[in-house]
Amino acid sequence: MSDMNASAGWSRAFAPASVGNIGVGFDLLGHSIDGPRDEVSARRIDEPAVRILRINGNVPGIEQLPLDAEANTAGRALIALCESLGLAHGFELMIHKGIALGSGLGGSAASCVAALVAANALLDQPLPREALYPFALDGESASSGSRHGDNVAPMLLGGVVMALENRMIQLPTPEWLWCAVVHPDQVLHTRRAREVLQAPYALHEAVTQSQHLAQFLTGLQTNDRELIRNGLHDVLVEARRAPLIPGFGAVKAAALDNGSLGTSISGAGPSMFAWCDSRDVAERVGDAMQQAFADAGIDAHRYVSPVAGPRAECLSANAAEDDA
Amino acid sequence: MSDMNASAGWSRAFAPASVGNIGVGFDLLGHSIDGPRDEVSARRIDEPAVRILRINGNVPGIEQLPLDAEANTAGRALIALCESLGLAHGFELMIHKGIALGSGLGGSAASCVAALVAANALLDQPLPREALYPFALDGESASSGSRHGDNVAPMLLGGVVMALENRMIQLPTPEWLWCAVVHPDQVLHTRRAREVLQAPYALHEAVTQSQHLAQFLTGLQTNDRELIRNGLHDVLVEARRAPLIPGFGAVKAAALDNGSLGTSISGAGPSMFAWCDSRDVAERVGDAMQQAFADAGIDAHRYVSPVAGPRAECLSANAAEDDA
Repeated sequence: MSDMNASAGWSRAFAPASVGNIGVGFDLLGHSIDGPRDEVSARRIDEPAVRILRINGNVPGIEQLPLDAEANTAGRALIALCESLGLAHGFELMIHKGIALGSGLGGSAASCVAALVAANALLDQPLPREALYPFALDGESASSGSRHGDNVAPMLLGGVVMALENRMIQLPTPEWLWCAVVHPDQVLHTRRAREVLQAPYALHEAVTQSQHLAQFLTGLQTNDRELIRNGLHDVLVEARRAPLIPGFGAVKAAALDNGSLGTSISGAGPSMFAWCDSRDVAERVGDAMQQAFADAGIDAHRYVSPVAGPRAECLSANAAEDDA
Repeated sequence: MSDMNASAGWSRAFAPASVGNIGVGFDLLGHSIDGPRDEVSARRIDEPAVRILRINGNVPGIEQLPLDAEANTAGRALIALCESLGLAHGFELMIHKGIALGSGLGGSAASCVAALVAANALLDQPLPREALYPFALDGESASSGSRHGDNVAPMLLGGVVMALENRMIQLPTPEWLWCAVVHPDQVLHTRRAREVLQAPYALHEAVTQSQHLAQFLTGLQTNDRELIRNGLHDVLVEARRAPLIPGFGAVKAAALDNGSLGTSISGAGPSMFAWCDSRDVAERVGDAMQQAFADAGIDAHRYVSPVAGPRAECLSANAAEDDA
């Protein structure tokens, strides 16, 4: 099949949105969700280059995304792949954005992971999923300026993933865990969201966060609802970013009042997520969070997904041809 | 048996030393070791009081320990136990110290845990081990001024334990993990060791520590040597306390150069520990650490123990009578 793709056509893949940080695991944890997704179609070309033919999709701000491959997360990831493998050929890409820019749902990561998965299927010897991770980190750095794996790693593996410098570890995720995600119709730039984290912290804040993280991770490993609930509580980042998100306090209260286990900001925001112990609770919590944004005069999209969300996958080998 | 003890005699229990913090889990993690230990003999008395008859043992500074039960960790723990259960009777105690004061090996915690285990055996209805935890925290606070469970919890349960505010969680501990502990002949007071932690931290330090802790915990859960090695690396506390421990740099280098997985300060110091992947390595590492202290002109005791160390246990129901 990879030969057929190589000569004849396009490979198309999607990558899911993700909840970076999961509150308590800043720059460390993330999980994918069954919700918005980016799709990328890739085609082999004879010359050793990466070209982005077009970027489309119904998301605001899309015109800001660079067609220059080096500056684009998808392009940069494939350039890194080609260079690392010493490929004699290159790729052309078409990117379809489904994840809003600046939403905190890993849009830049998703384009990059979808491109890698689509292109990988066209290689004479496709790589295992884990081997795509360093290229995904290269790609992600085109957007954020640094190599953060907390979005690309869960997109590559699915579910809750610990993103280390050179390794991804998928964590056990109880199937009863569901997530509500609410994306307000606003943009929060990651750089702005990082600026507010400059001021230093007291030891007890770092220690409290450690204690929460330890409970959270142990709760996942041992399927312990109480540990997950106690652990899902960010004391480092959330309080500083909350003022950047209009409606934050009301949305958080709505999530907690309606029975979620815990709630916080997804990635750099402004999206917010809440973990719940059933689909029903997640639906109710998602409604309440959306309503709280509405009460603050802000339209918001709402998604409900298992915490064990999907991983990026090829959709078809030749579908993008019909698309083109 | 508890009736016999109640009427006739003494109950004696030991509690092992412990490695508090385990470097990466400040005020959160600890593990017991098979090494020095405190022993406490307890006897029921008719009046509702707690009295400490004597404190002995061959450890320097022992004369500083208070016989006043309220000010003593063992006494305070039993007072809390008696009050909580509304007991009509009380206890007399004899404390035998085997763990040096101010060593960073949990000596104050061990007296408190041994007293609880000895006295618990004399209750008409002895409590499960977990139920002793809040009283152990009460006792520990007589010494440190705050309720830290990272020594009492591993002494109560054995092995590596996560000490939460109101719960202890024993973590899976691979049996191939061994620990070398070296106790230099010096005293470092916990209060002094805490003073150096006052200055604030940058976010990246807290995040790096979180990443290490996450790897460490996941390594224990999944029996992954590489994760344990990567995780056993404290970036918050060690660098600030190291100057309080003469020889620290050389001892750390000796541990790492001889093949340990990681090394840091035990509790508030000055003892240092190193985790190793076999007993042989731990013996070699312990020798090298002891030699490094010696080269700095400091005598040091050396202990080698499984990381899955023992828990406190009753030694006999009537043995203390012979002792008295």
